[in-house]
Amino acid sequence: MTRNARIDPETVTVDVLPPAVILCEPQLGENIGTAARAMANFGLVDLRIINPRDGWPSEKARAAASRADHVIDNVQVFDSVEAAIADLRFVYATTARSREISKPVRGPDEAAQTVCGHGREGHKTGYLFGRERWGLNNEEVALADEIVTLPVDPNFASLNIAQAVLVCAYEWRMKATRGALPFRVDEETHPPAEKEDVVRLFEHLESALDNVNFFRPPEKRPSMVLNLRNILQKANLTRQEVKSLRGVIAALERRPTRPRREEPEGRDDE
Amino acid sequence: MTRNARIDPETVTVDVLPPAVILCEPQLGENIGTAARAMANFGLVDLRIINPRDGWPSEKARAAASRADHVIDNVQVFDSVEAAIADLRFVYATTARSREISKPVRGPDEAAQTVCGHGREGHKTGYLFGRERWGLNNEEVALADEIVTLPVDPNFASLNIAQAVLVCAYEWRMKATRGALPFRVDEETHPPAEKEDVVRLFEHLESALDNVNFFRPPEKRPSMVLNLRNILQKANLTRQEVKSLRGVIAALERRPTRPRREEPEGRDDE
Repeated sequence: MTRNARIDPETVTVDVLPPAVILCEPQLGENIGTAARAMANFGLVDLRIINPRDGWPSEKARAAASRADHVIDNVQVFDSVEAAIADLRFVYATTARSREISKPVRGPDEAAQTVCGHGREGHKTGYLFGRERWGLNNEEVALADEIVTLPVDPNFASLNIAQAVLVCAYEWRMKATRGALPFRVDEETHPPAEKEDVVRLFEHLESALDNVNFFRPPEKRPSMVLNLRNILQKANLTRQEVKSLRGVIAALERRPTRPRREEPEGRDDE
Repeated sequence: MTRNARIDPETVTVDVLPPAVILCEPQLGENIGTAARAMANFGLVDLRIINPRDGWPSEKARAAASRADHVIDNVQVFDSVEAAIADLRFVYATTARSREISKPVRGPDEAAQTVCGHGREGHKTGYLFGRERWGLNNEEVALADEIVTLPVDPNFASLNIAQAVLVCAYEWRMKATRGALPFRVDEETHPPAEKEDVVRLFEHLESALDNVNFFRPPEKRPSMVLNLRNILQKANLTRQEVKSLRGVIAALERRPTRPRREEPEGRDDE
């Protein structure tokens, strides 16, 4: 088990150019909006729409985007796939079924790796998503470099556009940030115990148990001690947790729970 | 670039016990339904609900589940987190913010690895998701073994329940199937060209270009040939694509496009 330092949100800056998301002839403004929200969750901002059925701008899209206004405000509308991808270096077509096309098929993780490779060099890339009902046609797929598909259960493969965008955006961010999370265990608030403190805890517990004649028969004491020490080691204790457990033992011993003499004063302030 | 055989959907069977998804006091039936759909997309089936505000069963949930009826029909309702997780071996609490709790924090990929490890042994696991508005409280998080959080953009971290379920379910399936996709390039329909055929294509093109005195000055011929061969190698041609290109060259040579003499009859039938 690894303890990880808390990551300050300010430090999770991504120096990889994010891919564009290109929606081909979406019918519902809601889907455009939920796709925009999914993009914003993982740091994507470049949304392009080809011939939206209900026109643009769309109040339904803005409402469904749940305050991803920076994505909605920057939407670009195009009248062909060729125009929408013209400035991109590498394009993935997302499809949910096998095609009569000989083109490499990647999972979202592999695609994200490729897209991040280009993005690290400052080159623009994009993911092309098809219509709600029938996806992309073969001529549109032919304009892409590779195909990306999701590892869905073949018995229940229907994924809406925002969900497909979400998974691609998630994988992009995982690769772009190398898995950085918005927070981990906060080592400043929860510093791990030094081994010296852990050993003192062991000894405190064992001496308390000696006092009540817990280790019987005496020849079993070594293996019983080992078991107890292994249980406590597994808990990967913090400094505060060691103190709490020593208080617990002292309370069960019916001893006062003030700091023990061997602990130097002011240790809490470290 | 690796060519992968098409994976028959029937062969993507998952011999790993999938985790349960536990929704704590969800308010909206729609969210239960979209969570069920996200589960079904990636092969999860065990949905548990603790005190749904609007009761159960829920027609709104069923409608939003888009035919994930097998998940909806098997929902179990509980009145406490303790009861909902009683039969599980390992539980993840999903949280979107740092806690005053010393507990390991994992990304969805790391969590999926752990959950799959238990699932391979046939042990039940679960992901606990909080309320729409304010997630899980600290007492509920304390019942879990570890925390899972998503690598969202800290500036736009609000993810709805179904989206969080979707990413966890996606990562579970990626780990459980080792990234198997519902399809890859279909090698039966698109068999890759044998190298012999590719070399014949090179020679055909080069002889056609010799005939029109393309390689000038003659001392540059070797490097020009290398360039052309490298371009064609990059395309990773199928057998059919080699034939198509030879037809193209023959047409530009103004030669009939019937099969060339050196190709044995019946090759198409291989």
